[in-house]
Amino acid sequence: MEELIKKIKGSTKLSLEAQDYFISISNEKFVAKESVLIRQGQRVEKIYFVKSGCLRSYCIDKNGKEHTLQFAIKDWWISDYIAIHTNELATLTVECLSDSTIIEFNAKEMDSIFNRFPEFEPFQRKNLQRHIVSLQRRILNQLQLSAAERYDLFLEQYVDIEKHTPNYHIASYLGITQESLSRIRVNKSKK
Amino acid sequence: MEELIKKIKGSTKLSLEAQDYFISISNEKFVAKESVLIRQGQRVEKIYFVKSGCLRSYCIDKNGKEHTLQFAIKDWWISDYIAIHTNELATLTVECLSDSTIIEFNAKEMDSIFNRFPEFEPFQRKNLQRHIVSLQRRILNQLQLSAAERYDLFLEQYVDIEKHTPNYHIASYLGITQESLSRIRVNKSKK
Repeated sequence: MEELIKKIKGSTKLSLEAQDYFISISNEKFVAKESVLIRQGQRVEKIYFVKSGCLRSYCIDKNGKEHTLQFAIKDWWISDYIAIHTNELATLTVECLSDSTIIEFNAKEMDSIFNRFPEFEPFQRKNLQRHIVSLQRRILNQLQLSAAERYDLFLEQYVDIEKHTPNYHIASYLGITQESLSRIRVNKSKK
Repeated sequence: MEELIKKIKGSTKLSLEAQDYFISISNEKFVAKESVLIRQGQRVEKIYFVKSGCLRSYCIDKNGKEHTLQFAIKDWWISDYIAIHTNELATLTVECLSDSTIIEFNAKEMDSIFNRFPEFEPFQRKNLQRHIVSLQRRILNQLQLSAAERYDLFLEQYVDIEKHTPNYHIASYLGITQESLSRIRVNKSKK
């Protein structure tokens, strides 16, 4: 928790009262590999900050195929933000790919913190801006790069992710088949 | 400008002083069709709110092919946010697809407004959240939907866009060839 507080203090001045309140609404917990934190079709109440381990958000299409929106490793936030910000049911499932330690927050309590302690706003604004940059880059990469180039960027962004996650999750993030990913890996190993 | 102020007041209480300052840093102007507001490779200083007309942001890849990140119609914001938030040169070009009226802001002045008038924060937070929802939906749609399904959603989101923009811009947004888009249109017209 101290690390997260330190991060917040990096972008905003935080009163002791705000800090205490933030800690009071947080819930640090251990979650075992394969735990499901959010399930597609259900109500979403929580957002998660990852202290250690690896989580994944994905949706399942009408043919039963999985599509990965995000992996979350140390210091990343994860939830179904579409559901939270639109007040709809989850379109995503969030699961633990490894034993993980997370800090859990109630989304409504987090949202009300900005009224109560506006000093959290600059931290959140910078978080959201970074998130937008990363999503826009992903869209542009998807439009203009080859699958092999996207795989290289993915490995730069998610260092060590391959320890946690099987091939087909990565393929489902890149929007390619497992067979294509295997070919890309074989070609890389020949270089 | 009154409309934009009204929008802001919808998500936050705005003092008269904040309102006056916001107006003082805004610059409403007419821009002719084909004007280029931001050019890939150059420094980005401005962000734009669209009062009327239609703008587009896109990048050109190493083979000279265009890829559209965004169209902006009435009430949308547009700029190269990757460049602004990372302090890098533009990876995008922003051009006017039709004669348009825009409200221009200096990005640095806009950023400093939050220190000076923190009451703008809730408005900006909600804007950024909506933007994240729309980008995440686009990524999920790109991963799981057919080109024809994505085209239908595109037409729902950008009503009347086809008046402003040629086929190849829409194809470059959907990540498909012009020929595929033409086929989709022919099939739609048969239904």
